[in-house]
Amino acid sequence: MTRSDAVRLTADLIRCPSVTPEEGGALGLLSDLLGAAGFECVRVDRGGVCNLFARWGAKGHAKTFGFNGHTDVVPVGDEAAWSVPPFGAVEKDGILYGRGATDMKSGVAAFAAAAVDFVRETPPDGAIVLTITGDEEGDAVDGTRALLDHMDATGERMSVCLVGEPTCPDRMGEMIKIGRRGSMTAWFTVTGVQGHSAYPHRAKNPLPALARLMDRLAGHELDKGTDHFDPSTLAIVTIDTGNPATNVIPAQGRGAVNIRFNDLHSGAGLTDWLRSEADAVAAEFGLSIDMEVKISGESFLTPPGPLSDLVAAAVEDETGVAPVLSTSGGTSDARFVKDHCPVVEFGLVGQTMHQVDERVPTEQIQQLKAVYARILQAYFA
Amino acid sequence: MTRSDAVRLTADLIRCPSVTPEEGGALGLLSDLLGAAGFECVRVDRGGVCNLFARWGAKGHAKTFGFNGHTDVVPVGDEAAWSVPPFGAVEKDGILYGRGATDMKSGVAAFAAAAVDFVRETPPDGAIVLTITGDEEGDAVDGTRALLDHMDATGERMSVCLVGEPTCPDRMGEMIKIGRRGSMTAWFTVTGVQGHSAYPHRAKNPLPALARLMDRLAGHELDKGTDHFDPSTLAIVTIDTGNPATNVIPAQGRGAVNIRFNDLHSGAGLTDWLRSEADAVAAEFGLSIDMEVKISGESFLTPPGPLSDLVAAAVEDETGVAPVLSTSGGTSDARFVKDHCPVVEFGLVGQTMHQVDERVPTEQIQQLKAVYARILQAYFA
Repeated sequence: MTRSDAVRLTADLIRCPSVTPEEGGALGLLSDLLGAAGFECVRVDRGGVCNLFARWGAKGHAKTFGFNGHTDVVPVGDEAAWSVPPFGAVEKDGILYGRGATDMKSGVAAFAAAAVDFVRETPPDGAIVLTITGDEEGDAVDGTRALLDHMDATGERMSVCLVGEPTCPDRMGEMIKIGRRGSMTAWFTVTGVQGHSAYPHRAKNPLPALARLMDRLAGHELDKGTDHFDPSTLAIVTIDTGNPATNVIPAQGRGAVNIRFNDLHSGAGLTDWLRSEADAVAAEFGLSIDMEVKISGESFLTPPGPLSDLVAAAVEDETGVAPVLSTSGGTSDARFVKDHCPVVEFGLVGQTMHQVDERVPTEQIQQLKAVYARILQAYFA
Repeated sequence: MTRSDAVRLTADLIRCPSVTPEEGGALGLLSDLLGAAGFECVRVDRGGVCNLFARWGAKGHAKTFGFNGHTDVVPVGDEAAWSVPPFGAVEKDGILYGRGATDMKSGVAAFAAAAVDFVRETPPDGAIVLTITGDEEGDAVDGTRALLDHMDATGERMSVCLVGEPTCPDRMGEMIKIGRRGSMTAWFTVTGVQGHSAYPHRAKNPLPALARLMDRLAGHELDKGTDHFDPSTLAIVTIDTGNPATNVIPAQGRGAVNIRFNDLHSGAGLTDWLRSEADAVAAEFGLSIDMEVKISGESFLTPPGPLSDLVAAAVEDETGVAPVLSTSGGTSDARFVKDHCPVVEFGLVGQTMHQVDERVPTEQIQQLKAVYARILQAYFA
């Protein structure tokens, strides 16, 4: 029996134009491949999004290794700026080009190929579960969450899970993620009373209060970081009024901040803090300030232990690089998986993700497959 | 000979649809009226704007009383919201309706009618000059300034000047303006480096610097007012970014402030202050801040003296109300005239100016004409 070719599978997946929420044929292709290898495949579609649940071995087995990834990709952007067709999967000089080449059709291809070979060659005493979503780049409401809901409802489980997102900043093997910061956005609307710039005492200008609030929030040090996390950050992402008339004091101003927070904070705690800062400024200026908050994900940490040790050893054995355990970066679907089981993330170098001419050295895809294979061997050893 | 009817003249002028920069027939109508009374009329058109210079008596006479006003009007806005045609000059129950009814076709009609009657009935030993512009509500670049340039170039003069803008907040006769605050606007552009909200250390967010700058400027007390002026004011009029993506730190933010300043300040001095505040914030944040400034008018004062005494006496004799001498409010073309000769302003109650259903009691137009007539009599007595 031929071994699975992760590079060819990546190329086949790139040729599926699966811009969120389009499935583009990607999950069907994986379903065929996994089904042929004895995986039980279930399409878990919700809210117009397609997802794939695949299991080899017994349902709910106490020793179930899980992989998580996504086949959806971000839009190509300015297609004219690409030097190759974005869904063409052109390979030149050992480099494979295309949207999703690093984020993360290669990762999905690598773990699918590794899992297929593994169950064929050394069927384990346990189970392997693949949760592959088509809604990671979008709202992520009906993606991995739908898969986990399906698992809860049907008695499926993962004992541990590896998310195959790109995790290495520059060099293959250098970073494993064992947690992620939380992310939340707060929108503030300060409402005053419109008026003529020449008569400010007859108006109530919302903008000084908005500027004061934004200055206070941006100037506040949330923390100095923890053992496993960088300091939390707050970024003012926009302040807007839309008043073109210099002789008019506007009635309303809006601002938004995005917070990336570590394990010293929770979305609820930060919401309380933001509300109290807004209330203080509102009182100083005698104005009302409305606040809307969206918590995209709480911070979480899978403390260094057996799972990260196992993954780190596999990475170092295969690449010769000792990976650092990090919690840096944005959010990923690991934020959902962590409510189900211990989760770590390891994948490719992510330098060209979301960019024009997204690309990956084919050698790295093979290396990634080999790392995932070592992880499976070690887990079931 | 019939005396001039200022009410009818106001109505005729309202029927000329002279929304800036359209002349609409208004200046032609005045030119005919004044010409028939012996005024020498010259059209001073510049930059697509029409203006009228009219003089009775000898050019450059040492005793020349000047009037200044405008026939252009602001747009009607939502015409459906008017209860009468905005250019129809409908009169109901002693109230004359129409765009320009108070600002300021009535004022122009009142001083033109008063001047025509005065030179016919009691030709003075001196001269009367009327400078009437079609560009007060617009940029005002080619309006009264064009008229004054024309006068300088041709040896015309005014010894004193009265601007007939509405000056009374609530009750006819209650306020004369003897100066105006200056007005300027400054636009700030803070430029940083765009980036991902999850990695603020790789970006340079311009918004905290912009918020800090706006907070400092709005929190600064420019002065406590002077003998004749209210305190200077600074209003933040807009802050804008236009960044819809909460995971993106924007590259640029913009803000604008409008300052109304008294005689303790000059546009140049305030420009220096704003620049130094911007430089200080730019240095604190390691960012560049660009600033653009437009000075719409310097502050000025015609100190209480013979001219204001004469006008105040005429107002009180005619209306029974002792006017206060004020420097409140926005800008007017008096800011240009003050470089030519002492200038004061007196006119109607301005409550409905720029509004839907702009209107004026016809009795007030007659009263205003009578005040102007008393002023001419007293000046040439």
